[in-house]
Amino acid sequence: MPTIKTKHYSIVTGTNSLSSLKSFLSKNKFSAYFILCDENTLLYCLPTLIFACPVLGKAEVIEIESGEESKSLEICANIWETLTENKADKNALIINLGGGVVSDLGGFVSSVYKRGIDFINIPTSLLAMADASVGGKTGIDFAGLKNNIGTFAQAKSVFVDPSFLATLPERHYMNGLAEIYKIALVADASFWKQLQKAGPNQNAEKLVSKSISLKHAIVLKDPFDKGIRKILNFGHSIGHAIESYFLGSEQALLHGEAVVMGMLIETHLAFQKKLLSKEHLVEIYNELSFVFDVKPLTTINVSDLMPFIYNDKKNSKTQLLFSLIKKPGACTFDVPVTEKQIEKALAFFNAHIQ
Amino acid sequence: MPTIKTKHYSIVTGTNSLSSLKSFLSKNKFSAYFILCDENTLLYCLPTLIFACPVLGKAEVIEIESGEESKSLEICANIWETLTENKADKNALIINLGGGVVSDLGGFVSSVYKRGIDFINIPTSLLAMADASVGGKTGIDFAGLKNNIGTFAQAKSVFVDPSFLATLPERHYMNGLAEIYKIALVADASFWKQLQKAGPNQNAEKLVSKSISLKHAIVLKDPFDKGIRKILNFGHSIGHAIESYFLGSEQALLHGEAVVMGMLIETHLAFQKKLLSKEHLVEIYNELSFVFDVKPLTTINVSDLMPFIYNDKKNSKTQLLFSLIKKPGACTFDVPVTEKQIEKALAFFNAHIQ
Repeated sequence: MPTIKTKHYSIVTGTNSLSSLKSFLSKNKFSAYFILCDENTLLYCLPTLIFACPVLGKAEVIEIESGEESKSLEICANIWETLTENKADKNALIINLGGGVVSDLGGFVSSVYKRGIDFINIPTSLLAMADASVGGKTGIDFAGLKNNIGTFAQAKSVFVDPSFLATLPERHYMNGLAEIYKIALVADASFWKQLQKAGPNQNAEKLVSKSISLKHAIVLKDPFDKGIRKILNFGHSIGHAIESYFLGSEQALLHGEAVVMGMLIETHLAFQKKLLSKEHLVEIYNELSFVFDVKPLTTINVSDLMPFIYNDKKNSKTQLLFSLIKKPGACTFDVPVTEKQIEKALAFFNAHIQ
Repeated sequence: MPTIKTKHYSIVTGTNSLSSLKSFLSKNKFSAYFILCDENTLLYCLPTLIFACPVLGKAEVIEIESGEESKSLEICANIWETLTENKADKNALIINLGGGVVSDLGGFVSSVYKRGIDFINIPTSLLAMADASVGGKTGIDFAGLKNNIGTFAQAKSVFVDPSFLATLPERHYMNGLAEIYKIALVADASFWKQLQKAGPNQNAEKLVSKSISLKHAIVLKDPFDKGIRKILNFGHSIGHAIESYFLGSEQALLHGEAVVMGMLIETHLAFQKKLLSKEHLVEIYNELSFVFDVKPLTTINVSDLMPFIYNDKKNSKTQLLFSLIKKPGACTFDVPVTEKQIEKALAFFNAHIQ
C-alpha cells in the first residue's frame, strides 16, 4: 500500500487504504463526522466505507445531486446550514466521498466553515483519484465561471481505493483517463510511451499511483500555482472554456472530455508557436483521437470561447498566457497566445477530428 | 510614521500613511482597483483617499450598507458578481475602506475570489484601526452566528490614518476603545495603568499604535489561533453571545459594547475560578464601568446565551473553554467553565452595574 507523506498530509493508495482510514480515525479525535456524497456514492460506496470503518455509522450523511451543477453557492449554504444545525465545531471532520465535484465542493465548504475545519478525500472516480482529490485546490462555479470562488486547502489525508472503480460507468472512466494522459504529456515521457504501448486498459491502480506521484511532486514545488504548477493546466485554458460554454446545456461535457479537446487544440497552438515539432503534433493527435471518443466542435466559433478564456484565472484582462508542451513529457508555461492563433488551432482541430 | 513589517505584509500608521499607500500603489502593478466602502466612508473618507492617491480615481467603487447585517453571504455574492462582471482577474486589488464590517467582509470576499486576490485595509473606525484590520481574520455571519464562515487571510498591507477618526461619532469611538482596554488587560500591565491614569481621551494615534503592536506580536506567535492568540478572545465568548443575541433587534449592540459586558462577566468567572484576586476584580469593574456606558442585562437569562456560547468557534460541543485574566496584563486560555458559573457571573454583573 504506497503512501506519500508530506508535512501536512498523506495520500494512501491501494485496495487496503480503507483500513488505513480506520486507523487514521482512531488516532485522530474528531468531535463529529460528516460524510458528503452524491446519490451514486451513497448507493455504491457508502456501505463499503461504513463496513470498513464502523465508527462512521454514526456520521451525519449529507447528500448532494451528482454533477457540476452542485458546485454552487446555494449548495454550500445548504451544507453550512446543516453543519451549524448539527453544531459542528472546529474539531469536526468532513469526509468527501465521491468524484471531483464532491471533493471540490466539500473541500471549499470545509476550508471556510469556522475559518477552516479538517476534511479528507475518498475519491471514487478515476478523475478524482488521479487528479482532483490531490493538490489542495477547492472551488465552486459562480457567475458562469468554473471554480470562480475557491481556496487552496489541503485535505488532511487522501485515501485512494481503486476497488471503487468497479462501479464506475465507461464514460466516467475515460473522463479520468484524460487527466492521466495529460500528466504523462506534461511531465513524463516514459509514462507517455507506456500509455501508447499498453493502451488505456492497464491496471488502474498503477495508473492512479503514477499520476498521483507525478502531480504531487509538481504541487510540492509550487503549491499556489505561481510557476511550475501551471504546466498542469495544459489543455485546460481551452478545455475549461469549452466545458463552461456547454455547462447546463444538453451537450454538457464531462471535464475530461473537454480537456481532451483542449489538449488537442493547444497542441496545435504549441506547433504554431514553434515549440513543438510536426512529428509530435501528429503523434499526439493520433494517440488522443485513437484512445478517446472526440467529436469536432462544428457548432462553436472562436468568439464563443473567448469570454471564457479571458476569464480564466491564469489570464489577465489584456494577455492570454497558456501552458504549452514542447514534446511529450515536457511543458512550458506563461506563453502568450493570440485570438487569431486560437482560431487557427480550432480550425485545425475541426479538420483533423472526425 | 511607524511601520511594522513582516515577511508577508506591513502595517503603516500615522497621519502620513496615505502617502505610503501612494508609493505602494506605484510600486505594485495591479490590473484593476476595487474600493469597498459603506455610505459613510463613501461620503467622508473616499474623497480624502482619492485626493491622496489620484490613481484610485479610476477604481470601481462598491458600496455596501453600514452595519453588521452587510456581513452576509448575499452581499458576498453581489460583490463577486460585480468583480466577475468587471472582469477582475487574479492581479486585481481590493481596497477595504471602512470599519470592521468592511474589512471582515472585504477580506473574506478577496480571499476566495479566484482562490484569493490581494487586498489592503484602510481602517476608518477606532475599532478597525486598533483591532479588526490587523491579524488576518476575515469572516461573515451565517445562520445567526458571527463569523461562522471565514478565512485566515492577511491583508497585503494595512494603512492606518488616524485623521479619519475626526468624522467618527462618539458611540463608535467608545466601541473601538473597548478593544484597546482589552488588549491592555490581556497583554500589558503598564498600558493598563496608563489608561487608568490618563483616561480614554488620550492621543488616539498613540493608543492605536500601541494596540496594533501588542496585537501584532501575539498574532505572529500564533497566526491560526491554536494557542496564545486565544487570549485576544478575553471578553468575547460572552461578548459575542450577547452581540449575537441582540443582532438585528432594536437593542442591537456595537461589537465593543458587547465586549465590555463580556469582559466584566468573564472577569467574575476568573474570580470564581480563583485565577484573579478580589482586589483586581474590583479594580477592573470600577475602571470599565467608569469609562464605558454599561447597562445591566435584565432582559436576558443565561439560557438565552448558552446556544450562542456553545456555537462559539473556541468551544467544543461538550466543553466550554474560556480565556480568562489572572491580573491586569496577564491572561490564560482554555479554562473550562460551567453554565452554573456563567449564571453566577451574569448575576454579579447585573447586581454591580447600574
